[in-house]
Amino acid sequence: MVRRKSLKGDYCPSARSLDAIGDWWSLLIVRDAFDGLTRFNEFQKSLGIAKNILSDRLRTLVARGILKAVPAGDGSHQEYRLTEKGRDLFPVMVALRQWGEQHLFLPGEKHSKLVERDTGKTIRLEVRTEDGRPVGPDDAVILRVPEPEAP
Amino acid sequence: MVRRKSLKGDYCPSARSLDAIGDWWSLLIVRDAFDGLTRFNEFQKSLGIAKNILSDRLRTLVARGILKAVPAGDGSHQEYRLTEKGRDLFPVMVALRQWGEQHLFLPGEKHSKLVERDTGKTIRLEVRTEDGRPVGPDDAVILRVPEPEAP
Repeated sequence: MVRRKSLKGDYCPSARSLDAIGDWWSLLIVRDAFDGLTRFNEFQKSLGIAKNILSDRLRTLVARGILKAVPAGDGSHQEYRLTEKGRDLFPVMVALRQWGEQHLFLPGEKHSKLVERDTGKTIRLEVRTEDGRPVGPDDAVILRVPEPEAP
Repeated sequence: MVRRKSLKGDYCPSARSLDAIGDWWSLLIVRDAFDGLTRFNEFQKSLGIAKNILSDRLRTLVARGILKAVPAGDGSHQEYRLTEKGRDLFPVMVALRQWGEQHLFLPGEKHSKLVERDTGKTIRLEVRTEDGRPVGPDDAVILRVPEPEAP
């Protein structure tokens, strides 16, 4: 990604999140990790990604504390597992999925579904106020951090 | 983004969403559009992005139905506004913001906040079943579309 401005020190949490995740490949790796994949070869097969790119992205996700690399039980290989920080990306994955379901499939076209394991009920995500009322984009406003005054 | 495999026909709605949005710049443009920016120069100033990249990303977002280009009231310039499809990205933006707030700021470090316009109450997002119970990643499972049988 060509970038004139680093987003790492940005006051906007969304900008920092995008910066921390890195790129789409990283988010697809996270998706696969939620789906139970742990091994290099499993990610490689699922994503059809070049090995050098995959190993670079895995290394970055580990460095950023989103995945951890742990030896498998029998010591034969490394496994990549989500950390707590990585698991907290769950709502991001659900939000992307929900938008895709709404807008990127033809009527009647099949897609995978996210459901509750025990009941098979559909999983959804809603934006609400802290006291529980649903809100849309028109109800929301961003409170900025005031820029520090010049000395 | 180097990619061995197109995600456009993927059965996974998250993969299609990532493909449709394009890249981080596109999502930051969408964030700024939610925040009320409409003009090329406003996006350029906010993002510190090269003009040729910005105009490429704006064109792609319009082509994919996420933004629409409309002439300003006085006809002096173009304005870029979110379509309904674009506005439906609101939960994605809130999810990214929420994760950033949780994990990418030091304790006490200032960040911008998303609040309800009328009340100033914090806006949050929760993943729930269709009947309203909160769920986490361990409660969720993906139901895949069966691969078509070979003829």
